[in-house]
Amino acid sequence: MPTESRAAHELRPLKIKRRYTNVAPGSVLIQAGRTTVLCTASIDPKVPDWLAGKGKGWITAEYGMLPGSTSPRKRRDREKVDGRTTEIQRLIGRSLRAVADLEALGERLITVDCDVLEADGGTRTASITGGFIALVDAIRSIQRELPDPSRYPLTDSVAAVSAGIVAGKAVLDLDYLLDVSAEVDMNVVMTGRGRFVEIQGTGEEATFDDKDLAALLKLTRAGIEQLTAAQRQALGKHWPWS
Amino acid sequence: MPTESRAAHELRPLKIKRRYTNVAPGSVLIQAGRTTVLCTASIDPKVPDWLAGKGKGWITAEYGMLPGSTSPRKRRDREKVDGRTTEIQRLIGRSLRAVADLEALGERLITVDCDVLEADGGTRTASITGGFIALVDAIRSIQRELPDPSRYPLTDSVAAVSAGIVAGKAVLDLDYLLDVSAEVDMNVVMTGRGRFVEIQGTGEEATFDDKDLAALLKLTRAGIEQLTAAQRQALGKHWPWS
Amino acid sequence: MPTESRAAHELRPLKIKRRYTNVAPGSVLIQAGRTTVLCTASIDPKVPDWLAGKGKGWITAEYGMLPGSTSPRKRRDREKVDGRTTEIQRLIGRSLRAVADLEALGERLITVDCDVLEADGGTRTASITGGFIALVDAIRSIQRELPDPSRYPLTDSVAAVSAGIVAGKAVLDLDYLLDVSAEVDMNVVMTGRGRFVEIQGTGEEATFDDKDLAALLKLTRAGIEQLTAAQRQALGKHWPWS
Amino acid sequence: MPTESRAAHELRPLKIKRRYTNVAPGSVLIQAGRTTVLCTASIDPKVPDWLAGKGKGWITAEYGMLPGSTSPRKRRDREKVDGRTTEIQRLIGRSLRAVADLEALGERLITVDCDVLEADGGTRTASITGGFIALVDAIRSIQRELPDPSRYPLTDSVAAVSAGIVAGKAVLDLDYLLDVSAEVDMNVVMTGRGRFVEIQGTGEEATFDDKDLAALLKLTRAGIEQLTAAQRQALGKHWPWS
Amino acid sequence: MPTESRAAHELRPLKIKRRYTNVAPGSVLIQAGRTTVLCTASIDPKVPDWLAGKGKGWITAEYGMLPGSTSPRKRRDREKVDGRTTEIQRLIGRSLRAVADLEALGERLITVDCDVLEADGGTRTASITGGFIALVDAIRSIQRELPDPSRYPLTDSVAAVSAGIVAGKAVLDLDYLLDVSAEVDMNVVMTGRGRFVEIQGTGEEATFDDKDLAALLKLTRAGIEQLTAAQRQALGKHWPWS
Amino acid sequence: MPTESRAAHELRPLKIKRRYTNVAPGSVLIQAGRTTVLCTASIDPKVPDWLAGKGKGWITAEYGMLPGSTSPRKRRDREKVDGRTTEIQRLIGRSLRAVADLEALGERLITVDCDVLEADGGTRTASITGGFIALVDAIRSIQRELPDPSRYPLTDSVAAVSAGIVAGKAVLDLDYLLDVSAEVDMNVVMTGRGRFVEIQGTGEEATFDDKDLAALLKLTRAGIEQLTAAQRQALGKHWPWS
Repeated sequence: MPTESRAAHELRPLKIKRRYTNVAPGSVLIQAGRTTVLCTASIDPKVPDWLAGKGKGWITAEYGMLPGSTSPRKRRDREKVDGRTTEIQRLIGRSLRAVADLEALGERLITVDCDVLEADGGTRTASITGGFIALVDAIRSIQRELPDPSRYPLTDSVAAVSAGIVAGKAVLDLDYLLDVSAEVDMNVVMTGRGRFVEIQGTGEEATFDDKDLAALLKLTRAGIEQLTAAQRQALGKHWPWS
Repeated sequence: MPTESRAAHELRPLKIKRRYTNVAPGSVLIQAGRTTVLCTASIDPKVPDWLAGKGKGWITAEYGMLPGSTSPRKRRDREKVDGRTTEIQRLIGRSLRAVADLEALGERLITVDCDVLEADGGTRTASITGGFIALVDAIRSIQRELPDPSRYPLTDSVAAVSAGIVAGKAVLDLDYLLDVSAEVDMNVVMTGRGRFVEIQGTGEEATFDDKDLAALLKLTRAGIEQLTAAQRQALGKHWPWS
Repeated sequence: MPTESRAAHELRPLKIKRRYTNVAPGSVLIQAGRTTVLCTASIDPKVPDWLAGKGKGWITAEYGMLPGSTSPRKRRDREKVDGRTTEIQRLIGRSLRAVADLEALGERLITVDCDVLEADGGTRTASITGGFIALVDAIRSIQRELPDPSRYPLTDSVAAVSAGIVAGKAVLDLDYLLDVSAEVDMNVVMTGRGRFVEIQGTGEEATFDDKDLAALLKLTRAGIEQLTAAQRQALGKHWPWS
Repeated sequence: MPTESRAAHELRPLKIKRRYTNVAPGSVLIQAGRTTVLCTASIDPKVPDWLAGKGKGWITAEYGMLPGSTSPRKRRDREKVDGRTTEIQRLIGRSLRAVADLEALGERLITVDCDVLEADGGTRTASITGGFIALVDAIRSIQRELPDPSRYPLTDSVAAVSAGIVAGKAVLDLDYLLDVSAEVDMNVVMTGRGRFVEIQGTGEEATFDDKDLAALLKLTRAGIEQLTAAQRQALGKHWPWS
Repeated sequence: MPTESRAAHELRPLKIKRRYTNVAPGSVLIQAGRTTVLCTASIDPKVPDWLAGKGKGWITAEYGMLPGSTSPRKRRDREKVDGRTTEIQRLIGRSLRAVADLEALGERLITVDCDVLEADGGTRTASITGGFIALVDAIRSIQRELPDPSRYPLTDSVAAVSAGIVAGKAVLDLDYLLDVSAEVDMNVVMTGRGRFVEIQGTGEEATFDDKDLAALLKLTRAGIEQLTAAQRQALGKHWPWS
Repeated sequence: MPTESRAAHELRPLKIKRRYTNVAPGSVLIQAGRTTVLCTASIDPKVPDWLAGKGKGWITAEYGMLPGSTSPRKRRDREKVDGRTTEIQRLIGRSLRAVADLEALGERLITVDCDVLEADGGTRTASITGGFIALVDAIRSIQRELPDPSRYPLTDSVAAVSAGIVAGKAVLDLDYLLDVSAEVDMNVVMTGRGRFVEIQGTGEEATFDDKDLAALLKLTRAGIEQLTAAQRQALGKHWPWS
């Protein structure tokens, strides 16, 4: 079970600070328990070469862990990016694009950087949940320059959470210790309207059955509903859908 | 729908050749439609440093596409490995380890190389299905040197297949053209006894609901039963479980 | 002149938060105006190979700017480290070692990571000033394991500040706009007892004379006295020298 | 002496399969004894930058060994290409260009990829012999788009073979074991009309004299005549010269 | 003290050979004691992309040590450039640009390569002193193509020298043994008219005070006056200022 | 034919300076016409890992061109080594090892660095000819530490030269302009006793016949006899064979 103070179906305490830094148009510090991620969204007027001249924008993500975010200290990815980093940043980018209308964005590139200041499990899902808010703020900064003011570049919100089977029981929002002891680990990305964007269930040195899958999906759906509510509260009047 | 000649619930024609080359102890050429993958399993008496002295073995996988396997020609990964390659080879490795008893393997490293000679969709799932057979053959070559002859290093078989939602309909075993037009893409890795090893469902620029998920899981379960039967037939008397 | 609200001999508003994150034994968020740097100090029981078995420890530093810390967004140093980064992290490391008694530290490696969350000039000097505090906290966490409890591994405090000639006038603690318009740029690293550790004066596309040098040295000496006082206040009872 | 079943002046058994895969316009599997190389020729409508606008095409080659092609397993060239690989692919490219009329090819790039599925000596010479056939097939696929239909882009055929001095005796077409024990190793590339393209004779930790050289040249000339006949038979009616 | 034959305020014996090689428009071999550096200046008609179309030129420098220039042999910087190399070549480039009028140079790039044939301390300062002469010779080769013949692209000469505190005493022009034993190490770059371009004073594992600084500045100023005279003599009638 | 002043069978003017630098035990500046190469031989008491404990030494070579050695300036090989460089340094290493008795050398590594100060054709052959002399000098410096004083680690001398077919005529020792216009290019490495070490004959975009080969071999044999005499003269009483 998670900890004495948290039930298996409860999220860790969540804090979201918008405008954490000033220079990037979107800048969100998100904390889930001790996991802390700084998500900034930067806008570049130039799309990648392969998209040039097509009248569409692009949203991409990069992910990193600061060396001091974990113990023992993590070496910097200075010469090559490790496989886990690549996998995570591809997931974040796909998740954000799944709720984007890239034509409505116009020819520009938004890069959402998710840098982990402290890692205690669930950094990729916190990155998606926080990165969405940074993306909304970044889009606000260019609202007047969009190709069609009546067509908003996001069609839904998106958030993510993990769950796992720990000692035979389904548990929501795994911290590092739970993650290590989980037999099955699942990350679910879902929109505010409750549609799946991505399901990744993995039994590292273990397997699982339909009943396990159903339990994990039920937990994560409920968790994402709470995360969506928190995103809505953080954005307040800037929540794109009234 | 796939093609005039194949129903939505049918696998592509499957061919498996064992002992395709001679030098590697396991060497399997697997073809699913036009997708062709050479899976070789090599044995190294030395485990990675982080595992040394723990009395356990390790199984890892590497994946590559030959430049001429696709059109336009794919550049070689000579200076850095792209993110997709990393993701795929990590998936193959995890899938094979999920059915392995690494202590029963003894201190040795088995590397399963999956090199795509021709790519027409489903290369990662063909790699898992073919890689399992190469792994069985490689283990046969060291059967006498295992730490405990009565403890076989594999606990189950493993195979994988894709499915997707194409034009609103669930379709099994996507070839390249189907994959490109799919709104949702799912890869399922499952053991011969029908337990999940990995589920990866992705809606690239789209989302999906519980009903879609159920339809895809049903199709892939049936597909993997057929793939397991084909693996069993290819291995014949070398199938590890009677 | 700096800004309407700051005289040429005044530091920018300074904030120091200790224990900003939990996992690293030293973790300091330092802000000088809008420049924000997270300094963490991590301890590794193993020294670099070239120092092994000599009964001495080592202190090293790494420096990075988060991509969203500046506009336009800065590319990550993922394949190679740029020259400026290398120069800065070598300076930080030398500065911290100049006040260290490496034998008193015992055979261990302390790495001080200075990651810029927001960049507005003076990131290298803020890194030294904040990094020193993180170093003190990290040493506190191993105080009982030091080779000789009566020999403290730091001999003095260290802090740093910049100054420059802007429009012919000497100005302390340059922010980004001042730095860009400065004809001469000087960084001074000095101990709490007022001895120089490093002087770097550069006339990029300009030159300077003895009088300029004297004015800059006078300003920076006064600035470092204030920074030392701020370090002492932040550390409170943990200031190593009573 | 080679093996009980082969005389010193005989080639190893040779098999050539055209159209081994479908997607590349030229695709040849060549086997010389146990050495097996897949040669594919791909066409890119864009020449390298340094040749752009000169009305000429270019032919280049890349060479690789699959990790499972040899024992012990060969590491992938993922971060840097080793010297031997570079040398071999430069040789293959030069050899194919020596029989090409690059102006007759028009502004396009043909890349001949030679990937070794199993290595038992002589992989570079098999790559040249098989690569030539893949090149002919690739040119057939663009025959109608050539600048001048009456000017065929190849002026001759090209093939290659090795020979060596083993235990003082000249031997043709060295397999791996012979190669290792050879005092002198020579690779000869020659056109169908019997002119030299390249001679590389090397005495690794040994030297040789004029008589050795003459013996090796005689053997290789005879061997290349047989290889040319095999190429002609494999291409059948597609042999470019009647 | 330096050596029996040299006083603390004396430079090492200096030799300068112009036109050491023929192909580069500027080519100077400079020797200070046993330190030997070959400085060549090459001209490229194309400026870096970020400067294109601005009507200005650029001067950059690269620095390298031949493997055999030191003992033990130095590995080649073939995969990444070490931090010290980067720092040095940035310093050389800044120093040369400080006396350049980049608009008067016109849109061209001059690269000054400083390659150390033998290293015995002071390689970076010898590179600046010798590089300046190579730069003058390179500019002579394009004198007729300058945008404005009456505006010479250099405004002053530049030279550099080191000094240090060794056993408590200030010493000029440190060779390797002196450098290793110095408590404080200072490099000064100064123009022929006596203005500072760069001051870098470092107390590696030591600190220094105002009096030390004054002593070092006095020594280096006198040393640079002698170096400037040697540059003037080497250039003879090609010294740009009469 | 070469130049007005040189016949087709004549070498370019040759200069050899031993002890060009002091720190490396072997240091030779060799000039053939304007081609200038600095060859240094350094000794490392540690052999490569794969040779450790076998009682044998190793000789390896590295080759580089200084950026200013050619026009336009050559970029430094700082991130990856180009194919030509790799090929050349492998050739130099093989050539020197062909005359070495590696067991007589004892367990040590000699690295011969050949750095081109000015390039005008024939840099690889000058590197071999000069590198041999540097190797002899390096071996002299460790003569007393050899395992068996009566067994000298070199069995013969080695030198190299190029020749080519230019405008249908065989010409010795090609400079850059001749090399560019040659239809066939041959490099021959031969021992002082007249045995071949390596023959590399290449028809880039051309072919050659037996008669061409014979003419080139005759020229190069005569050239190497002269080079051997020059090596002998340069070494004087240090020539290893009386």
